[in-house]
Amino acid sequence: MKIIVDAFGGDNAPLEILKGSRLAVEELGVDILLVGDEAKIRKCAEENSVNISGMEILQADKIFEMEYDPRSVMKEHADTSLAVGMNALVEGKGDAFVSAGSTGAIVVGATFIVKRIKGVKRAAIASIMPSQKGPFMLLDCGANVECKPEHLCQFASMGSIYMKNIIGVENPQVGIANIGVEPNKGTQLQLDTYEMLKDSNLNFIGNAEVRDIAYGAGDVIVADGFTGNVILKMYEGVAGALSKRIKGVFKKNIISMISYLGVKKGMDDFKSSMDYKEYGGAVLLGVRQPVIKAHGSSDARAFKNAIRQAVGCVNKNVIGQITENIGE
Amino acid sequence: MKIIVDAFGGDNAPLEILKGSRLAVEELGVDILLVGDEAKIRKCAEENSVNISGMEILQADKIFEMEYDPRSVMKEHADTSLAVGMNALVEGKGDAFVSAGSTGAIVVGATFIVKRIKGVKRAAIASIMPSQKGPFMLLDCGANVECKPEHLCQFASMGSIYMKNIIGVENPQVGIANIGVEPNKGTQLQLDTYEMLKDSNLNFIGNAEVRDIAYGAGDVIVADGFTGNVILKMYEGVAGALSKRIKGVFKKNIISMISYLGVKKGMDDFKSSMDYKEYGGAVLLGVRQPVIKAHGSSDARAFKNAIRQAVGCVNKNVIGQITENIGE
Repeated sequence: MKIIVDAFGGDNAPLEILKGSRLAVEELGVDILLVGDEAKIRKCAEENSVNISGMEILQADKIFEMEYDPRSVMKEHADTSLAVGMNALVEGKGDAFVSAGSTGAIVVGATFIVKRIKGVKRAAIASIMPSQKGPFMLLDCGANVECKPEHLCQFASMGSIYMKNIIGVENPQVGIANIGVEPNKGTQLQLDTYEMLKDSNLNFIGNAEVRDIAYGAGDVIVADGFTGNVILKMYEGVAGALSKRIKGVFKKNIISMISYLGVKKGMDDFKSSMDYKEYGGAVLLGVRQPVIKAHGSSDARAFKNAIRQAVGCVNKNVIGQITENIGE
Repeated sequence: MKIIVDAFGGDNAPLEILKGSRLAVEELGVDILLVGDEAKIRKCAEENSVNISGMEILQADKIFEMEYDPRSVMKEHADTSLAVGMNALVEGKGDAFVSAGSTGAIVVGATFIVKRIKGVKRAAIASIMPSQKGPFMLLDCGANVECKPEHLCQFASMGSIYMKNIIGVENPQVGIANIGVEPNKGTQLQLDTYEMLKDSNLNFIGNAEVRDIAYGAGDVIVADGFTGNVILKMYEGVAGALSKRIKGVFKKNIISMISYLGVKKGMDDFKSSMDYKEYGGAVLLGVRQPVIKAHGSSDARAFKNAIRQAVGCVNKNVIGQITENIGE
């Protein structure tokens, strides 16, 4: 198996990407095709003693910058590592594509270069997130700001296939992100989706009250891309702001710093259970080949986990199963 | 000044409501008109030694239960303390109404019994929430699941008036809750609202990235009621779930419990800065008289703060200012 890696995506490229790729070779036994400027890749690897021997390199002169219009990935910036990598996937130069670059460009590229599975109406950004009961999948996290009920139903199917095969949840519980559990809550979108999912063959548990999401409200939570993105970012923002404050409490004086030692183990366990990077990145569900969006802030370990996620998608034939279940 | 208090709203009624009313009499020097079953009120006060002498009581036989249809506050359950209190406000028996009861019923009652200010298109639930930079107002938090740009613009005006007069923010910064700061982010609602607010006389700062809300992204954040409710509940849910986990870390063993003593002061300060109950409840903005929805879980202090908020609305003539600014 060969994974195509955008060596110039994300805040810590190329160094952490190269290190993560190295870890993937060692721990997962996969082949890696690095995409980017070969001279820069070799220089970075050498300077930091990262062993990239055995990895192929596909030349791409430019970097897709965060401020570029996502649609420019198609033409104007088709010479960037993100675009060249996505095209290499379509040309069969590898089995999956992983990038920590621009989410918008990855969505555009996945939809128009890799293309949707026939019958899938919308591709979704599906994120694995932590809850007190374990990881769950939230989709769509922002590929489609506006959605129809039939889109959410397809998201529910695709998310169930993923959670079952990659995370190992036997009969994934599907819920609609909503402002209450009662069937009459929400806008017309949630009302209509409720009726459609009720009659589906999925393990539909009704509306997932947004207040309960962090406690664990379902294995697959579906939402339109605007709402999903709000949920994702409120989760990250509130958790981040609170963590910062609590760190400040411990750093206040010598007594608080000593006190930290007494809870360090518990705090570390807590932090690691909250660390969504453990599960990889976000996966673009509904397109014809596996495309993984690693977190922009990925370090080597997070990027390796995103590669592991790509490997899982290939091994478990997630695309084939989605095609079989909802493709035409 | 006389505040009308629903003695039978919320999880801790009537005891904490009576205690909170007592605190309000002592600390704020206001008169209180308690609404509810007089025999039960007197019995509860006596058994718990709460001094309610000097408070008037308006008889209402029933309690508005949480599972009732909110619209039933108009007719079928017009004999409940919530409905009787709301009608007493309209009849001039007091200057403001405070209840910790059903949010839905309070919205219906405020809109159809107290009625909207002429020219105000929608009443909004406006909540004061904590951020790292201080309190901010989020509206609408759920009165209107779907909204038009002109509604959000009115929310922006009303929120600015409140933040200036009640919280004391000189020139309140107004932002639109959105999935990015760029003007082209969001659905048509956010795009159109952006254009309208840009040309307003408010201190519009553009889109408020949802990820930044807990850090402090503006003094007044406007959203449709669905999105606002999602933000409110994600905030409460994530903060609640994390706090529970951290409590668990400290309670783990004798060493962690001792460690807590070293950070107790800092943790207490942190908790109190996160405690939105300090600022009272949610205010129904856009109606003709002050209506405050106290948190359902209000204890005596939280309920007293909701009464203080009502007093502030009366003293600062918030209704008059809204009428002058956006009324017809």
